[in-house]
Amino acid sequence: MNEFMKKVRYGVIGTGGIGGFYGGMLAHSGQEVHFLFHSDFEYVRDHGLRVDSVFGDFHLENVHAYHRTEDMPVCDVVLVGLKTTTNHLLKTLLPPLIGKNTTVILIQNGLGNEARLAADFPNLSIAGGLGFICSGKVGPGHIVHSEHGKITIGSHQGDNQPILEQVIADFVVAGVPAEISDDLLMSRWKKLVWNVPYNGLCVVMNALTSELMANPATYQLCKDLMLEVIGAANACGVSNSEKFAQVMLEYTLDMKPYAPSMKLDFDFKRPLEIDAIYTAPLQAAEKAGYDMPKVRMLEQQLRFIQNSY
Amino acid sequence: MNEFMKKVRYGVIGTGGIGGFYGGMLAHSGQEVHFLFHSDFEYVRDHGLRVDSVFGDFHLENVHAYHRTEDMPVCDVVLVGLKTTTNHLLKTLLPPLIGKNTTVILIQNGLGNEARLAADFPNLSIAGGLGFICSGKVGPGHIVHSEHGKITIGSHQGDNQPILEQVIADFVVAGVPAEISDDLLMSRWKKLVWNVPYNGLCVVMNALTSELMANPATYQLCKDLMLEVIGAANACGVSNSEKFAQVMLEYTLDMKPYAPSMKLDFDFKRPLEIDAIYTAPLQAAEKAGYDMPKVRMLEQQLRFIQNSY
Repeated sequence: MNEFMKKVRYGVIGTGGIGGFYGGMLAHSGQEVHFLFHSDFEYVRDHGLRVDSVFGDFHLENVHAYHRTEDMPVCDVVLVGLKTTTNHLLKTLLPPLIGKNTTVILIQNGLGNEARLAADFPNLSIAGGLGFICSGKVGPGHIVHSEHGKITIGSHQGDNQPILEQVIADFVVAGVPAEISDDLLMSRWKKLVWNVPYNGLCVVMNALTSELMANPATYQLCKDLMLEVIGAANACGVSNSEKFAQVMLEYTLDMKPYAPSMKLDFDFKRPLEIDAIYTAPLQAAEKAGYDMPKVRMLEQQLRFIQNSY
Repeated sequence: MNEFMKKVRYGVIGTGGIGGFYGGMLAHSGQEVHFLFHSDFEYVRDHGLRVDSVFGDFHLENVHAYHRTEDMPVCDVVLVGLKTTTNHLLKTLLPPLIGKNTTVILIQNGLGNEARLAADFPNLSIAGGLGFICSGKVGPGHIVHSEHGKITIGSHQGDNQPILEQVIADFVVAGVPAEISDDLLMSRWKKLVWNVPYNGLCVVMNALTSELMANPATYQLCKDLMLEVIGAANACGVSNSEKFAQVMLEYTLDMKPYAPSMKLDFDFKRPLEIDAIYTAPLQAAEKAGYDMPKVRMLEQQLRFIQNSY
């Protein structure tokens, strides 16, 4: 039994569709998980956390629920399930949870989130998590996980390979498909191949993924956007094949009609994750001398919509 | 007095915002004008045609109103004010009006309309007209002309310079600013510099021109689209300067908040002029080896919207 085979104490910041599901699955399997809640704090303290999952429904009666991170213990692993639009809060939210050996895993969309966190916490062990999942909060303390679920985790900085492997093992025991990524940046760019077309177009066209796929013009547009992202990744030194676009198109055709997270944000008039999913990749591509005109246009249209709220 | 100094007999096919205004102004000034009406025929026959114009309101009591072109006389000049989406009807609508010396002027948006007409009528004298005007039909036999009004006319095929000059003279006498274009193709591409960004984006973003201009992201997107059109024009051998984009941006900033014709078509769930304003220029540019990625994306989005009606 090595130093990490001891039980891991988990913290979850942002208990919505992502933090509520992944943290909830760990807690349900017997892990010690401390959850930060915002608007749902009192509800969950009194009624617990409900997770309706295609992996099996469950209800956590006694949740370590907190309203302020100042009341939370130092954790070995902090899972961040916040929207990237609130990442500026991490600078003040995280310190009470951080000890000498804490690793923070950002389970978020987009590019550059870990680097921005590292700028505020240069010595912190930081990793990124990618949730390949359809999951959302549908009411106070009520998470619905409707499809998929795999999580991929990769290191951004710090000597954290052993603890990340322990986290993977804990997820697998909890029934969550999980794997290590040896190249977080490549994993992030690959996820962008899906996120860039569908998140933004579902908002601009006010449509579900299935509707975009059923129309020949927007099917082609999704593919065009994917090819721009793949081209940008290659320009940034992150090798990806154009064939991956076809894989993602077929994956989406196989999905149930789906509203991506940005579409839900739009429907509920919440801030859109434009910076992380669009602006950061555009800036990275531009720095590498690569142009993504259609991605840029989608970003411009989303900025207009965001400002029209 | 040359052969064309005699009074011109005008026909108008498509008596909406364009045909109703330009034909109405000619009739109001004493020209003989025969109008084809569709849904408004009985109303106009009984009540006449009303034009509320910034040039001065007027009401035509006795209109030469027709419901079928078979009942119309042969005309010297036929002004076509139909939407381009109904141009396939011209093949059967036009013949009763066409005599040995008839010239047909398509006062329409987009590219390629004259060439498509010429394919059906290879020996016909054909010209194109560009209406720089804000005008629309607001009710049966009721046209509202709210801003601008200039018409530019250029030959597409046929030896029609004298009759076109006579038409220009008739418009000027009627109080309509009018001028000959020596290069119809160049005039059409220049008008596309405005039509491509504003017609489509006002539909996709469900906004007025003023709203697009007030947001920095969509202001830039309008400019990006203009520069693509200017680049395509140059690639097609139609010289245009990038400075023209700034001219069009400032012209639009000076306009009252405006819903372009395609936005009105969208609001009233009428077919959108995607082929003439987007697909034809895209095909012309592609043939010249020039890529317009943002214009293509706008076309793809409009196709989705058109199919969602």
